[in-house]
Order: sequence, then structure tokens, then C-alpha cells
Amino acid sequence: MKDNNKFSLSSLAEVNDKKIVMLVLDGLGDTNNNGRGTALQIADTPNLDALAQQSATGLAHPIAPGITPGSGPGHLGLFGYDPIEYQIGRGVLSALGVDFSLKKGDVAARMNFCTLDSQGKITDRRAGRISTEKNRELLGKIRKEVKTEKAEVFFETESEHRALMVIRGHELNAEVGDTDPQQTGKAPLEANRPPFENSTAAGIAANILEQVREVLKDEPRANMLISRGFAQLPDWPSFHESYRLNPVAVAGYPMYRGIARLLGMELFSDAKTPEDILKDTVKAMKDHDFVFAHFKDPDKKGEDGDIVGKVNALEEMDKALPLITENPPDVLVITGDHSTPAALGNHSWHPVPLLIMGPGTRGPYRMKFDEVSAVGGELGMIRSKEIMPLAMAHAGKLSKFGA
Amino acid sequence: MKDNNKFSLSSLAEVNDKKIVMLVLDGLGDTNNNGRGTALQIADTPNLDALAQQSATGLAHPIAPGITPGSGPGHLGLFGYDPIEYQIGRGVLSALGVDFSLKKGDVAARMNFCTLDSQGKITDRRAGRISTEKNRELLGKIRKEVKTEKAEVFFETESEHRALMVIRGHELNAEVGDTDPQQTGKAPLEANRPPFENSTAAGIAANILEQVREVLKDEPRANMLISRGFAQLPDWPSFHESYRLNPVAVAGYPMYRGIARLLGMELFSDAKTPEDILKDTVKAMKDHDFVFAHFKDPDKKGEDGDIVGKVNALEEMDKALPLITENPPDVLVITGDHSTPAALGNHSWHPVPLLIMGPGTRGPYRMKFDEVSAVGGELGMIRSKEIMPLAMAHAGKLSKFGA
Repeated sequence: MKDNNKFSLSSLAEVNDKKIVMLVLDGLGDTNNNGRGTALQIADTPNLDALAQQSATGLAHPIAPGITPGSGPGHLGLFGYDPIEYQIGRGVLSALGVDFSLKKGDVAARMNFCTLDSQGKITDRRAGRISTEKNRELLGKIRKEVKTEKAEVFFETESEHRALMVIRGHELNAEVGDTDPQQTGKAPLEANRPPFENSTAAGIAANILEQVREVLKDEPRANMLISRGFAQLPDWPSFHESYRLNPVAVAGYPMYRGIARLLGMELFSDAKTPEDILKDTVKAMKDHDFVFAHFKDPDKKGEDGDIVGKVNALEEMDKALPLITENPPDVLVITGDHSTPAALGNHSWHPVPLLIMGPGTRGPYRMKFDEVSAVGGELGMIRSKEIMPLAMAHAGKLSKFGA
Repeated sequence: MKDNNKFSLSSLAEVNDKKIVMLVLDGLGDTNNNGRGTALQIADTPNLDALAQQSATGLAHPIAPGITPGSGPGHLGLFGYDPIEYQIGRGVLSALGVDFSLKKGDVAARMNFCTLDSQGKITDRRAGRISTEKNRELLGKIRKEVKTEKAEVFFETESEHRALMVIRGHELNAEVGDTDPQQTGKAPLEANRPPFENSTAAGIAANILEQVREVLKDEPRANMLISRGFAQLPDWPSFHESYRLNPVAVAGYPMYRGIARLLGMELFSDAKTPEDILKDTVKAMKDHDFVFAHFKDPDKKGEDGDIVGKVNALEEMDKALPLITENPPDVLVITGDHSTPAALGNHSWHPVPLLIMGPGTRGPYRMKFDEVSAVGGELGMIRSKEIMPLAMAHAGKLSKFGA
């Protein structure tokens, strides 16, 4: 007898010797650049196109039509964790982004340097976007002077006015008030105001922030820190628990390593260039049946509004692609975590081109791998969270549902 | 004030004199057979193709991308019952599969003959896959010798080592422990172990199985029965309650008749050949506004890995098709309950080609009816559970939602 009828993919997962590689081209999707086409359409990518001609293709919405994902939700979707159900706290995301090794029970928050006037009211919530260097200098001072009992506190620079604070102690929870009032002309809020007055972590945070105010009081601009999104590591099923796979990550940037670590993936290498990424991916396939390989450049160039740079990044990856297609996994997934159209200079909501090479495809096969060709592919328009079930199915790793 | 906001299709259902026929070509979907195309692409099907040229076409996922359905979930989806929400217990499916007329309150379980060693530990969970004939012989012996008080017990042969047990008594529930430990080297579990110790059915099952052990003790291989999935008939809304239709089934095989019966459909005929199926379907349309017509062969041939046989089965159905297209219902749905690619020799996750002929289509009309053409059809990629609402809509049987 089962307790309920809730469907769980993990109950269908089967172990076999087939290998799955998921190659994530960050920010892959694009818009049409005033009629010139998308980055993938402009780029000369004979190897990706050859793959499309024998693969299942389609488009994947990271979350839902119209919704633009951050990097965290974008990747959770790719890993089959519904980004709406599995939300990562802002503080935890900040920790992942700076490679801070968060431990279970740590309470993390995203901090902003801000400017207070003589009455203690906020005049600039970003302290005039101070330099990263200045940020480092000030956190150095804070680290030296702030004292805590019953807990350790860590500060890490992100960039400009952004920083991470982590409180480590015994049996803390994340019931701490955000001190950022979200508007200027108001004083920072108290971390331990009601209903947080009985939370140990809130008391510690309030005490730390009072000391910070003292340390920074003579600074002309960055004379206070305000906090948002206190959070702890979530207690989610690991990737291994979800799929009975033995996963590993090839990821050159902290945020993506961090999300992988969050799901219990080992780090195999921090390769950054297409050649290194694909060489390491092939090596990683020896002892792992799932490799997550991350390529950052298309997103970076897209965010810079640099369509030429984005096209070049995709062409570089295409040039390196034989490194893996000549040593292919059983199932190769190529897609992105979201679109970053160069014309927008930012993440966007557009669904992302998707390609699944492996046994069991049936067409229509498309001549090219790009946003426009993918509309006619056999996968149609799906959600990113459906990619993992498809990859598992093509690898013969999912048993039948019901008799 | 309403208690909740849950949408119910039945509240929109309207009765009129329009007829709907759903022709299920079991296991219809295929993969591309090393470049030769899918079974539908290879087959010469001028009548199906002519239909596609005037119908709404598309593809339907029986459950969700990547998920392979059994026959039960596959058909429930076609009938508009979400297979994840409406799960049939294994014991009930076994009863449906052997045409056992399960009554409300009966407790059914799927049984396996197994082999125990001298210490009572399982050495083979399938008793060396004994023949169906041997299975019949042993169940005959068991039927004669096993005695029960307070309940009746029925045993039915499925095939090889598989059998059905049904306990019929007063106010029984299915709180009975599975005795199959799911691995060899262990003894069968007790049906009435905690937390099942207060269940009447569990006590009866335990007693029956002790007697079975005695009856079979001198058998060299099949010297015990183990059980899985004790279940009772579910209490679901009938097809009539869901759609205000007066449904009937033309189905030659027990499993499909059983699922139809589960939803309160009458059986009109057990026709098996395309010609008989379609003749009976036309007859059934006289007094019924919904006919479920089931054709088994494409699935059978697909499971045999026999692409030629699958192609032949589809061509036979195509040849017979004028029997219905010359006496057409108002809405004719042609699809499958799932894909059974001959190349896999098994059910698969691939979405199934779907065709809806009737008033209110608009194209793009496709030249052929197959998996690849269907990608460009007007229905796009839907879930099987959405087919019934579409069929109802085309038949003018669904009123407006909201004002």
C-alpha cells in the first residue's frame, strides 16, 4: 500500500551503464538583432548543425512563458527541479556565487553597502556603487573589529556594493528580519524587530550590524550595511536521490559550481574554455554517468550587449565540439539555462533552443541548430524541468509508469 | 461562495445528438527505424492521409515528456482522467487483464509463483518462469485445497508465473502487506505484519498463503506464491458522470475492456480485426454518443520488434477505414494510448500522433498522418488528457466557461 498517489520520477529511475552529458551554453537564446537573426543563426556552427540533423530538437521555457529566470532558477530547471517549487534563498545564492562553502545551519544574507545621513536615514541604498576594491578594504576592517559571542561571522565581497554575510552557530534558523527598508529616506530596520525578537540569529545579526555601524561611521559614502534574504541551505533531494545518477560538474564559475554542489554534485574541473570544458567532460565520463558542463561566455557577451562576442563564443564552442562528438556519451543534451539576447543586454524570458542526441529520436530532423529551426523539431515547446526526464528516457534509465 | 476554485469539465458538459468515436491504435507511435522512418511513415495509408488533410492533427504525451506509460495509465489519459491523479492498483489491473469481474469491496492482488529453498528463502521470484499450463495446473490444485471462512477466494492464471488472487468478503479493505520482499535470499513477508495486524483482509490473506505453502510444498520450482499491490476498485467518477455521454466499448482484449468497465462503459463487442472493429463501431453509434474502439495489433507487433508486422497492421486498418469514414461520426478521434516503437520492442515515452476530424478545424492541414507531419499540425503538442475536452468541443458538447 502506498500512502498517496503522488508521482515521483525517482521511483522510476533505473541504473544502467549509459552516460548522459548536459552541455549548458549559458544565456544561449537570442532575439533577432534587427533582422540579422539570432546569435545562433548568425554564427557559423557546422558541428552543432550536423548534430541537429540527427537529434531531437525543440525549445524549453526555463520557468514559464514570459518569466525571465535568474541563473539559479535557470539551472534548477535544467536539473529537473521545478524552479517555482524549489526556491533558493537570496543569501544562499550569494554564498554560492562567491564559492563560499556554506554548511548546514549557516545563516547567509546578501548585504549592500549603503549611505546614511546624519539622522541615520538611507540616502543611497548602493552607497554610490563603490568599487569592488573599496568593498574589500571595508570588509577587511569589519572582519578585524566586529566581535561575536556564541557564533562566528563571515563577510565576503561580491562586487561593487554587494557582499555576503554568514552567521555560523548552534541551532540557528533564518528567522531574521531584512534590514533594507527598500527605499531611501528611511532608517535601516532592526534585524530582531517583532516577530523576530526571539530568534537567536536575529539577535546576533542585530548586534553585528550595530558594530558595523560603529566601524564604518567615518566613511563618507559606504557608512552602513543593509541586509536582504537571510536563508539557510535547503533540504532538497540530491541529484543522485532524484535520478540514481552519479553526477559531476565541469564548471568554471562559482555560481554554477555552487548550484551543482547544492544538489550534491561533485566538482570535476573548473574549465572555462570550450576546449578545456569538452576535454574534461570526456574525462569525467569515465567514472560518472552524468556530467554537467557549463560554458559561461554566451551569457557574458549577451549581457554586454555584444552580439559579435556572443557569435564568436558560439563559434568557438562549435569548433571544439568534435572533442565530444568523437567520444560521444550515449545521450548528449545541448541547451542553455535561459536566453540572454545581446539586443537586451540581459537575461530574458525567451525559450531556449534544445538538442538531445541519443537513441530513440524520430524527427523531423532540422538542418540547423537555432531558435527558429527548433520550432519545427520533434520536442516542440517544453519546460526546462522536462529535459531531465527526456534525457533519462533516451538513456533507457526510466522504467514504465503503471502496468 | 464556492468551496474551492477547482475547474470541473463535467460542469460544462452538454448533451446533444452528436456522436464521438475514439479509435485507439494501441502502441501507434514509433521511432525512425534507422532512417527508414516510423511505422506510419513506412506504411501506405491513403485513407488516414486523406483524413489528415481535413483534420486537426498534433501529438499527445500520454503522461509527460520522458514518461513511458503502461496500458492502464495510457488509456486513462485518453479518457481524460489524469493518469498521475488516477492511479489503478496493481491488483485491480491484474483483474482487468484477465476479465475477472471485480466487485466493489473485493481485494485483488497480483501474485507470482516463486521458488523457496529448504530454509524458506526465495531463490527465484518468478519460479523459473513456469509455463502458463503449469500455472493453470497449480492454481487448480490450490483452488481445490485452500479453505477460507468469512470470505471467498479466487485465483486466476495470467501467464507464466503470474496470477491473480481476489478475496471477497464483508467490509474488507486493501490494508494488506505485500509478501514479495522484492529480492532473493529473503523469506516472503507476512501479509498481516504490523501495521496490517488489525486488518481482516490481511489476516485472511496470511491464512490463505500458509495453506498455499502447504499445497505447493512438494513442487520442485513453483513452491510458493508471493503477492504485490493489494487493491480495490477505485471510487472514481464514471465516464458518463464526467462527460454526460452514453459510452460503449468495442474492445477485443480483456485489459481494455476492463479499463472501460472501470469507468462504467458498456461492452458492445469484442471485435479484434480492423473490419470487425469498424463495422461494430458504426453499429454501436446508433444508440451511443461515444464509442471507444480498440485495435491491439500495432502494439503487439511493436512489442515483438516486428516493424513489418506493425506496418501491415496499420495498412490493414487503413484499408478498412472507409467502413467508418463513409458512415462518419460527427467527431472522429484517431490516436494511440502510447508509442511502442518496433526498434525498442517496448512501450516508450514518445508522444503519439493524434487526429481529430470534425467541425471546427482550421489547419495547417497536413498531407500525411504520421509522427513527423503531426509536428506541424494545429493541435501542437498536448497531453492525452486534453483530447477528450477537444473532442467534446468539436462535437459542440462543452458550454462556455464563465460569462
